[in-house]
Amino acid sequence: MDWTLAQRAHKMNPSVIREILKVTERPGIISLAGGLPSPKTFPVEVFAEACAKVLRDDGRAALQYAASEGLPALREQVAAMLPWPVDPAQILITTGSQQGLDLVAKVLIDPGSRVLVETPTYLGALQAFTPMEPLIEGVASDDEGPVLQDLRHALGVADDPADAPPAPDRRRLLRLDLDPGHDFPRFMYLLPNFQNPTGRSMSEARRAALSAEAQRLGLPIVEDNPYGDLWFDNPPPAPLTARHPQGCVYLGSFSKVLAPGLRLGFVVAPAALYPKLLQAKQAADLHTPSFNQRVVAEVLKNGFLERHVPTIRALYRAQRDAMLASLDHEMQGLGVSWNRPDGGMFLWVRLPEGMSAIELLPRAVDKGVAFVPGAAFYADHADLRTLRLSFVTATAEQIQAGVAALAQAVREQQDAAR
Amino acid sequence: MDWTLAQRAHKMNPSVIREILKVTERPGIISLAGGLPSPKTFPVEVFAEACAKVLRDDGRAALQYAASEGLPALREQVAAMLPWPVDPAQILITTGSQQGLDLVAKVLIDPGSRVLVETPTYLGALQAFTPMEPLIEGVASDDEGPVLQDLRHALGVADDPADAPPAPDRRRLLRLDLDPGHDFPRFMYLLPNFQNPTGRSMSEARRAALSAEAQRLGLPIVEDNPYGDLWFDNPPPAPLTARHPQGCVYLGSFSKVLAPGLRLGFVVAPAALYPKLLQAKQAADLHTPSFNQRVVAEVLKNGFLERHVPTIRALYRAQRDAMLASLDHEMQGLGVSWNRPDGGMFLWVRLPEGMSAIELLPRAVDKGVAFVPGAAFYADHADLRTLRLSFVTATAEQIQAGVAALAQAVREQQDAAR
Repeated sequence: MDWTLAQRAHKMNPSVIREILKVTERPGIISLAGGLPSPKTFPVEVFAEACAKVLRDDGRAALQYAASEGLPALREQVAAMLPWPVDPAQILITTGSQQGLDLVAKVLIDPGSRVLVETPTYLGALQAFTPMEPLIEGVASDDEGPVLQDLRHALGVADDPADAPPAPDRRRLLRLDLDPGHDFPRFMYLLPNFQNPTGRSMSEARRAALSAEAQRLGLPIVEDNPYGDLWFDNPPPAPLTARHPQGCVYLGSFSKVLAPGLRLGFVVAPAALYPKLLQAKQAADLHTPSFNQRVVAEVLKNGFLERHVPTIRALYRAQRDAMLASLDHEMQGLGVSWNRPDGGMFLWVRLPEGMSAIELLPRAVDKGVAFVPGAAFYADHADLRTLRLSFVTATAEQIQAGVAALAQAVREQQDAAR
Repeated sequence: MDWTLAQRAHKMNPSVIREILKVTERPGIISLAGGLPSPKTFPVEVFAEACAKVLRDDGRAALQYAASEGLPALREQVAAMLPWPVDPAQILITTGSQQGLDLVAKVLIDPGSRVLVETPTYLGALQAFTPMEPLIEGVASDDEGPVLQDLRHALGVADDPADAPPAPDRRRLLRLDLDPGHDFPRFMYLLPNFQNPTGRSMSEARRAALSAEAQRLGLPIVEDNPYGDLWFDNPPPAPLTARHPQGCVYLGSFSKVLAPGLRLGFVVAPAALYPKLLQAKQAADLHTPSFNQRVVAEVLKNGFLERHVPTIRALYRAQRDAMLASLDHEMQGLGVSWNRPDGGMFLWVRLPEGMSAIELLPRAVDKGVAFVPGAAFYADHADLRTLRLSFVTATAEQIQAGVAALAQAVREQQDAAR
């Protein structure tokens, strides 16, 4: 039988890294690789009570088809949670924020459309965008976020804003002799808070500058914020969307503050995009499970997250501290560097010159520890020396043992190369 | 702010019919329009027990991220339910069977690809396929299903099989001078059991002939079967997929036999397609809610469906009988015709010559009853005289009053036209 696949299907390939990671799933391996929240943080009892209440109070409605936009009560709760004024009519409930990425890709990406991303960027976003066949370009990024000079370079504009006319003239100028809609990037995808994979956050200064530049040049922004509530000492600066709601799509999730197994996320979209995202949503799965929406709406009542999220922050901070202490202790003299994230779930490590994280992985697995090679997270020009460590899934004791094993693997790899 | 939309977004438009139907949602209207299962059939108590058990036994796992393929136990249960030998490795759990349609579209449809459908066909499938920009063509269909002569015409082959060489030569011949992959249809979409919208089922003879023809010509089939378990007197003939598993993708759903609000469906895919559908699934929403999968796996234990589904059949049969009795009584002398479905949720009505169901709708709503004009369900060349009635959402008493109001609206419309 001879099936003819769509062109886009040929571009959907299993990542080499995912194949490598399969070996890390064998029992006994300490995984610092996964992006799984700590199951200790899941409020199982609270969910059990909410399930019982929802089914008791209005079980038949909870199990029936529902509106594609999402449950009105949940949309109101989401709007009220956000740190800028949002009309519930702008909220679209999605089946996890991964679906938000899929819908954005369908509505904004033509084959060959340019899409800008940070360097490195979230792998799941690359996977969601790829089926719509964009050209994805990494913008050089430092510890504070994307480098504006490189962003301007990608947009083909003068580096000194004073040299350039203000938008929208600039944008029109830029696009005058171009195939309309194909050469100016459709959007830039950003994950400003405790980014996956690096754990870094965009500084207030960089947010302000990037937001101003995006407004000046008419560059739409897709802002993904699954980790923003997981801050350890101070909340992150205001989202980019709060600074220019009409120019941004914002994606949020309950996966990291409640539980991922419910697949509940949301999109905040400007009026220019909402109807199209809604139509794409309806075509994709009709609506997000109504039962799950009602259960979460029930859980959220009476400020549950305000009591619950601080317990997640405290746990993850302690585990980050354990990982940093282990790295400080175990990696001495090995030429390995890493950052010190202020929240989230991940930390970013760079191996010494000449060493490849992909090559290191099998040796680390032999020693009993797994990580994700950083190459998985680059749209282009991967830095092969980088790797991602999660400090949330493993316990503090496992983290200590895992980092010690990783240091041993680095040492042996260095010895082998001599 | 100037967002550039993808070409496909311009093709995603709210259906005119859906806009018309909004007026039918006002209180007091008897809706024979909706495709909602009767909420009386939802086993609320059983779900409540299953939710409690799943959260008590292994709540943390039920709330964690999970594999994109779906819960192994549920995949085994689904494979065991199907009336032909299926390896659980072929099963992909989806967020409703609507998502199955979305994934099939992504993997099989390029812009301009031909897709064949029955006449009329399921509106949700048209909505799922449209974003991938196919050319959708209706194949003429009678009470037994698609007419083979018209199918052969669509494929450009001789009407008498004896005149044509066997596949694969025939298919190669057909495609030799064509843009490869673009002119031979990517697949035919079929809903053989108690079809939405018509309620009709494909006869055994038509299934056998269509399956043989599809195999002979190498035409892939996408078989959608949400209603197959809702038979009233006798189970339907074997699925098309059972006759040629390598040439078919099969979509199933728990929405009509348990509850739609959980959004649980599945795809059975041949090895040639499974990996691509899986990658598309991962990109679309990572996985279907793990909690919902575990709850349904718990509900399905010990043969629950074998006890539960007969109660749905009995209810829907009684309501179909009520609708047929009302139609027989109320429509006398009006020149209206309708079919007598053997299962499912819908019945198909044809108005007398010169009358339009779209024009009739406002008058019917004034009389207090709503239906869906059949035009919504045609890929092309809509029969404006047709309309769909659901006999499952309203009670038998409401059905009686609704059909009487509909007959009155037809009578007044006829009088007005004189």
